[in-house]
Amino acid sequence: MIKVAILGASGYTGIELLRLLAPHPSVKVGFASSRQYAQRPVSEVFPAFSGFYDGLVFRDPEEFKRIKVDVAFCALPHGASHEVVGPLLTTGVIAIDLSADFRLKDEKVYKRWYGDHKAGDLLRKAVYGLPELYRDQIRKARLIANPGCYPTSAILALAPALKRGIIDPGSIIVDSKSGVSGAGRSSSPDFSFAEVNQGFKAYKVGCHRHTPEIEQEMSAIAGKKTTITFTPHLLPVSRGILTTAYAGLKKAVTTDDLRALYAAFYEKEPFVRVLPTGAFPDISQVRCANFCDIGVHVDEAAKRLIVVSVIDNLVKGASGQAIQNMNIALGLEETTGLMALPIQV
Amino acid sequence: MIKVAILGASGYTGIELLRLLAPHPSVKVGFASSRQYAQRPVSEVFPAFSGFYDGLVFRDPEEFKRIKVDVAFCALPHGASHEVVGPLLTTGVIAIDLSADFRLKDEKVYKRWYGDHKAGDLLRKAVYGLPELYRDQIRKARLIANPGCYPTSAILALAPALKRGIIDPGSIIVDSKSGVSGAGRSSSPDFSFAEVNQGFKAYKVGCHRHTPEIEQEMSAIAGKKTTITFTPHLLPVSRGILTTAYAGLKKAVTTDDLRALYAAFYEKEPFVRVLPTGAFPDISQVRCANFCDIGVHVDEAAKRLIVVSVIDNLVKGASGQAIQNMNIALGLEETTGLMALPIQV
Amino acid sequence: MIKVAILGASGYTGIELLRLLAPHPSVKVGFASSRQYAQRPVSEVFPAFSGFYDGLVFRDPEEFKRIKVDVAFCALPHGASHEVVGPLLTTGVIAIDLSADFRLKDEKVYKRWYGDHKAGDLLRKAVYGLPELYRDQIRKARLIANPGCYPTSAILALAPALKRGIIDPGSIIVDSKSGVSGAGRSSSPDFSFAEVNQGFKAYKVGCHRHTPEIEQEMSAIAGKKTTITFTPHLLPVSRGILTTAYAGLKKAVTTDDLRALYAAFYEKEPFVRVLPTGAFPDISQVRCANFCDIGVHVDEAAKRLIVVSVIDNLVKGASGQAIQNMNIALGLEETTGLMALPIQV
Amino acid sequence: MIKVAILGASGYTGIELLRLLAPHPSVKVGFASSRQYAQRPVSEVFPAFSGFYDGLVFRDPEEFKRIKVDVAFCALPHGASHEVVGPLLTTGVIAIDLSADFRLKDEKVYKRWYGDHKAGDLLRKAVYGLPELYRDQIRKARLIANPGCYPTSAILALAPALKRGIIDPGSIIVDSKSGVSGAGRSSSPDFSFAEVNQGFKAYKVGCHRHTPEIEQEMSAIAGKKTTITFTPHLLPVSRGILTTAYAGLKKAVTTDDLRALYAAFYEKEPFVRVLPTGAFPDISQVRCANFCDIGVHVDEAAKRLIVVSVIDNLVKGASGQAIQNMNIALGLEETTGLMALPIQV
Repeated sequence: MIKVAILGASGYTGIELLRLLAPHPSVKVGFASSRQYAQRPVSEVFPAFSGFYDGLVFRDPEEFKRIKVDVAFCALPHGASHEVVGPLLTTGVIAIDLSADFRLKDEKVYKRWYGDHKAGDLLRKAVYGLPELYRDQIRKARLIANPGCYPTSAILALAPALKRGIIDPGSIIVDSKSGVSGAGRSSSPDFSFAEVNQGFKAYKVGCHRHTPEIEQEMSAIAGKKTTITFTPHLLPVSRGILTTAYAGLKKAVTTDDLRALYAAFYEKEPFVRVLPTGAFPDISQVRCANFCDIGVHVDEAAKRLIVVSVIDNLVKGASGQAIQNMNIALGLEETTGLMALPIQV
Repeated sequence: MIKVAILGASGYTGIELLRLLAPHPSVKVGFASSRQYAQRPVSEVFPAFSGFYDGLVFRDPEEFKRIKVDVAFCALPHGASHEVVGPLLTTGVIAIDLSADFRLKDEKVYKRWYGDHKAGDLLRKAVYGLPELYRDQIRKARLIANPGCYPTSAILALAPALKRGIIDPGSIIVDSKSGVSGAGRSSSPDFSFAEVNQGFKAYKVGCHRHTPEIEQEMSAIAGKKTTITFTPHLLPVSRGILTTAYAGLKKAVTTDDLRALYAAFYEKEPFVRVLPTGAFPDISQVRCANFCDIGVHVDEAAKRLIVVSVIDNLVKGASGQAIQNMNIALGLEETTGLMALPIQV
Repeated sequence: MIKVAILGASGYTGIELLRLLAPHPSVKVGFASSRQYAQRPVSEVFPAFSGFYDGLVFRDPEEFKRIKVDVAFCALPHGASHEVVGPLLTTGVIAIDLSADFRLKDEKVYKRWYGDHKAGDLLRKAVYGLPELYRDQIRKARLIANPGCYPTSAILALAPALKRGIIDPGSIIVDSKSGVSGAGRSSSPDFSFAEVNQGFKAYKVGCHRHTPEIEQEMSAIAGKKTTITFTPHLLPVSRGILTTAYAGLKKAVTTDDLRALYAAFYEKEPFVRVLPTGAFPDISQVRCANFCDIGVHVDEAAKRLIVVSVIDNLVKGASGQAIQNMNIALGLEETTGLMALPIQV
Repeated sequence: MIKVAILGASGYTGIELLRLLAPHPSVKVGFASSRQYAQRPVSEVFPAFSGFYDGLVFRDPEEFKRIKVDVAFCALPHGASHEVVGPLLTTGVIAIDLSADFRLKDEKVYKRWYGDHKAGDLLRKAVYGLPELYRDQIRKARLIANPGCYPTSAILALAPALKRGIIDPGSIIVDSKSGVSGAGRSSSPDFSFAEVNQGFKAYKVGCHRHTPEIEQEMSAIAGKKTTITFTPHLLPVSRGILTTAYAGLKKAVTTDDLRALYAAFYEKEPFVRVLPTGAFPDISQVRCANFCDIGVHVDEAAKRLIVVSVIDNLVKGASGQAIQNMNIALGLEETTGLMALPIQV
């Protein structure tokens, strides 16, 4: 069995790793850290998991130094992985970081949006863990920067059209809507039930930290520096991101053409499902599963493409994608442990 | 007391008229029709209203012919007002139609989106009931076409920028998100709790019937034929619409400039509240109230404006605006009966 | 105009007082304290209220000493009113306390459940502000202890049957379900959206602090010491309490008899609505309104009564009832400012 | 592979069978009927399942006659299984009926609550499919009557106390709260999002059809005819039942005693988890999983037991329990295919 550690195991992405890894046939969680719950049994803190992790006790992060594992998932807050990952890599561990710490290639860009980077040299070693674009690099990676939830939904929505050169990179608008778990297991009153329930709002308009990450990947695909307009919104649901992406068409295509192009682009992808012409996805159809479902449309009058993509922000947008990356890096079947069906109701 | 009829009083907009009119000091509901509940007391069908409408019994629509009122609200399904409104107008009644039947000026456009119009000659007589743009005409109107919910949110979001000529009409994208009550008091399983709850989707992408209504008003403001891209989404909330509108800037402006322009444009409007720079509205802050709250932003890199507007689809998006129109047409203080505070929690 | 102060105006009951008092014709809020938001305008902190309280700025509680008002609502956390209320009363102010600080008559009982009372002598002066039982005392009261939300729903559900001697006091079970706002405007992760949404649980089983308050009032009605079984549950809704109360019948009665007894008992009450036989209330039918709606049933096989009552915990369960008490104590019409219709959708 | 048919595969329990059976290692769904969707591919009707059931097409129920399977799940409306099950049994198929059609032993009781039974002779052959009580009979059964959702939660909550003789059967009160999916995939406006959302109510007070089913099993355990008081409520959640059960104690026990008794009773049960003293379950902790989690408390003053149990109504309350029964009847490991972890967020 491959031995796995989860650093930061009591936040939502950590909990989701615990949920998804329990039935994984090749892996065993041997260490789970949580400052808040240190020394308390996992199944006591989370009675939902009672019977599954009965031997496992949350440990203080410090104890990780004495532990030997094959894979380490870092599900820590932004900034906290800088100093954790370096020592890890010297031991041959595969490190999969779910924070934003290693996603940006350009240290200056990182600094502008997040502040100083304390392990900037590692940025070059990190592979951006979006298997649909970087599978070959992930196979050989030791440090995988697991993509952000919004970027995953936006990049998968636009990559085929951008790569095939049918849209103008300068015209991209990404209007995204995310469930509340994307904000983490927070104690902020802003995310209390009574404030969020029955509400809906845009937030961080023009200044969300996922903007440079989306721009980096759009630029890489377009082959030139690309800026986008990105507006995130907060949905009163626990899980799910829906992105509605708009871009100006460089050539006339029909919706059927576009649909065919997307279907071909993702033909061999186990976790991307392109819907039939005229169909658009609901976040419910990927709930708790690792899929990204996509519907496309051409607004012929406006010469504009509209793409709608959905993911579960905790699965394909975080922990599921992290496990997908782990499977690839370990040479396992990529879908292992990730084929539970969506919870549509 | 002014005597009022509500035709179609047991749908959501009808119920909302009942809710809002009960405390109105100048008006009394003298007739309320409902085919489904004919001959049943209002307070029996809707126990929430027990004690408020104790004499009032739902009537068969046919009985309306024998009734004399000063104002008639038609809250009937699309198409049903065609033949109701004509006879009404001959009696001097002020008719306020909450359906789409009289919103479009061009009968050919109506036909393309809704089918044949059986009272096409009345289209010319109808005034589009958006007080912020057409207050003077509403004062003298006998037939008021109450705007659609999405169009209200979209037009109020963009009118200042479009009228002042700072955006390119051809670049407009309206990305709207609506609560479920916008679909009416439906028995479709598509709107059942278990299907909608925790879900979110785009629907009628590229083909929603509110598109021509928004385009008609945008064209009128821009002074030239304008087509837009409009994408509606279904939010898992009971009430509320949030519209995120995008448009390319024709000249460089800052967010502060734009905010000042909007504040000036709506300075005397009792129901439009422009937020401070940097603030964006939540649908919760207008819940159950007749306000439209607006936040603006300039994406300077993309030379694009982002405007976020919120309304309660049943109030400013339907029944509240209908009462606002009634107040204007009757020469009453425009805010009468409409100043209950929003239910923010 | 009567001048009113709200101490603790930025919690949910404080906000609800602001919402309900704005349209009250005889009252003006002259002071609103909030430690957290001191010196910030009310309409900036709560944009929903923009346009209604434009002159009003949240003040530090200390500033209250320099203010003269006619009525003071204390919407402070439990324990915080002990030392605030005494000085108030010496100035002739009517004090309406929304905390638990003055609800229990017996200082020893208070101590057991809440700890030491620092103004125990005032317990005797306080009137329990449930108008349906204590209207005459409230008329003359200077210190009104506004009832708890659960107790209001439980006492109104059982008072008629208990007072008429048809149930056995020792057999009472109160199974209550409350929306989340009852927990206050909390930053606890236990009340975050993602934890509460789609969930439901019993909590503080056998040890909730509203138990002695319900028992005190049941004992007063029964004329003998009465203990009850009380189980509160947390509903994933923002507002509303539904109590299902069970008690053994001392004599055989039919549901119709029982319904008639309840209707007679509450005949003159403006805010209690007894439903027809066979009907049971939904919390939606009293949402945002000051009503308590009640449905009754006799389980003849089990010789047991079942009563279901609903209130909005923030209105009849807190701020609405406080205003009802104020109206009574000031000699105003009891329903003034409280007749907005429920928000059933 | 064992070949399985699902009759009525497009209702919520049918969909849940499809979800749970896809990863089951020993079983293949070879037939799925749906009158509504006949001849449409499963993955087209339910895009969530795209990629999992790509060969499977919904069939008209009539086509079942020509199909040979090993196990048939009947997920049809009440009454519809009467004439389906008889012919099935003659072919050696194991029939697992998820409706109420074969749960009641006494045809007269069935008739009183549901109307005439058209296959009354089969009632005697049916085994009540609650493994915790009837595992040995299920092993040999050909016709398994899968228990109702409320009865499952109520019986598991009370069986230990009742069987050990510590409660008075005549004092039992079952106060249950269920999510909306329990009402089926309905098109009734009563279950539309806008009606249910933010609401809560008791329904069918004193007359719910699960009452005789609970009484039958309580009587069997108590060894004497037992009547209970049962009040169901409708929760604004998609999934989950929480039952709060009350009963008078025949002898003095402490909460710790009671907890020990429950833990011992369910010691070997893979799907019943008794919580530590002082802990009570949330429906979230069993969401989408086959567990029943139980917390117990003794109200010593009232000499009364309080037991809180939670299940997912679609899993342990329907389709999961049906698969558990299938596993037992087929001699497979009882937990096969049922060990996905709960979706706690």
